[in-house]
Amino acid sequence: MPYVNIKITREGGTTPEQKEKLIAGATRLLQEVLGKNPATTVVVIDEVDTDNWGIAGQSVTNIRKRQK
Amino acid sequence: MPYVNIKITREGGTTPEQKEKLIAGATRLLQEVLGKNPATTVVVIDEVDTDNWGIAGQSVTNIRKRQK
Amino acid sequence: MPYVNIKITREGGTTPEQKEKLIAGATRLLQEVLGKNPATTVVVIDEVDTDNWGIAGQSVTNIRKRQK
Amino acid sequence: MPYVNIKITREGGTTPEQKEKLIAGATRLLQEVLGKNPATTVVVIDEVDTDNWGIAGQSVTNIRKRQK
Amino acid sequence: MPYVNIKITREGGTTPEQKEKLIAGATRLLQEVLGKNPATTVVVIDEVDTDNWGIAGQSVTNIRKRQK
Amino acid sequence: MPYVNIKITREGGTTPEQKEKLIAGATRLLQEVLGKNPATTVVVIDEVDTDNWGIAGQSVTNIRKRQK
Repeated sequence: MPYVNIKITREGGTTPEQKEKLIAGATRLLQEVLGKNPATTVVVIDEVDTDNWGIAGQSVTNIRKRQK
Repeated sequence: MPYVNIKITREGGTTPEQKEKLIAGATRLLQEVLGKNPATTVVVIDEVDTDNWGIAGQSVTNIRKRQK
Repeated sequence: MPYVNIKITREGGTTPEQKEKLIAGATRLLQEVLGKNPATTVVVIDEVDTDNWGIAGQSVTNIRKRQK
Repeated sequence: MPYVNIKITREGGTTPEQKEKLIAGATRLLQEVLGKNPATTVVVIDEVDTDNWGIAGQSVTNIRKRQK
Repeated sequence: MPYVNIKITREGGTTPEQKEKLIAGATRLLQEVLGKNPATTVVVIDEVDTDNWGIAGQSVTNIRKRQK
Repeated sequence: MPYVNIKITREGGTTPEQKEKLIAGATRLLQEVLGKNPATTVVVIDEVDTDNWGIAGQSVTNIRKRQK
């Protein structure tokens, strides 16, 4: 009965199909590596605004601006 | 000074009244079972889109479709 | 299929019986308030050292010392 | 490579400039106190609706009403 | 720069090799599905005592006892 | 009433004094940037084994070995 939380930046639009793949893939990973029961494996995806995600001391919004 | 995080799917609309009951109930539970001070008990509720919540290897969006 | 995370300080020893009560109580709360299915309600309890829990700008270890 | 999660209520509007300061400040704190590498320090800010944040057994929405 | 948190019960001993597989697998999943950069993908594994993990209103410790 | 969670690897020993500085510093940051009340600011520090922390697809245990 594992619980997996995936946090990603909300950029360019993650599609429902991609989310299905994340959920299926994380569930399969826990089953293959640890034999965990898929039926009770929970996956929660959080999409975070680029203003609210920081790395190296600045927001991703800022990093993306400089990359342009 | 406990911290309680409740994650639920965003479906059908959880009302402010229901959220009050979750907050009051979780706070009371910690007081009754462990004698924790309600004044410093924090409860945070996260409502998660059904696309972003997976169980048994698929999203709740998908599960709800099949249930219809 | 809610997910509840309860964080408390590790002080004086929380017994397995108390943890059972927290798990049962949180599960019941979600069922009573939102009609959530107990079978898929997950509760995770984190016990945190008092050195690692801060409120009002200082650790609980420090606060407990001053209270004596 | 620390990970810092800051949860605040969504009230009155936290500006992108304030978020930059939180990100920069948290990253600097980890560098100054523990010598952590800023390049791999991640900061995620969650803004939570006042309906969804409880303290002392009631929502912040309710507390704000009574304070008026 | 995703952040993945995997919570599992501490049972029977998860080996360092299995943890490496979880880390590698989760990182690869984010790269394959969303094109995320592995270099900045963080994975944190939490192992939780069976007393502290509840499902269906009771601890996993209790569930395991009944299964014997 | 912010909640701050700081996750760091458990390496070389973080002292209680360093933890006090993290707690005080995070609380001050929220006060200075957003005017948040220190009295209700909660900080929780999680120390994670290097086997359980991954970056760039491998555990920190592995990364440290290669760095030697």
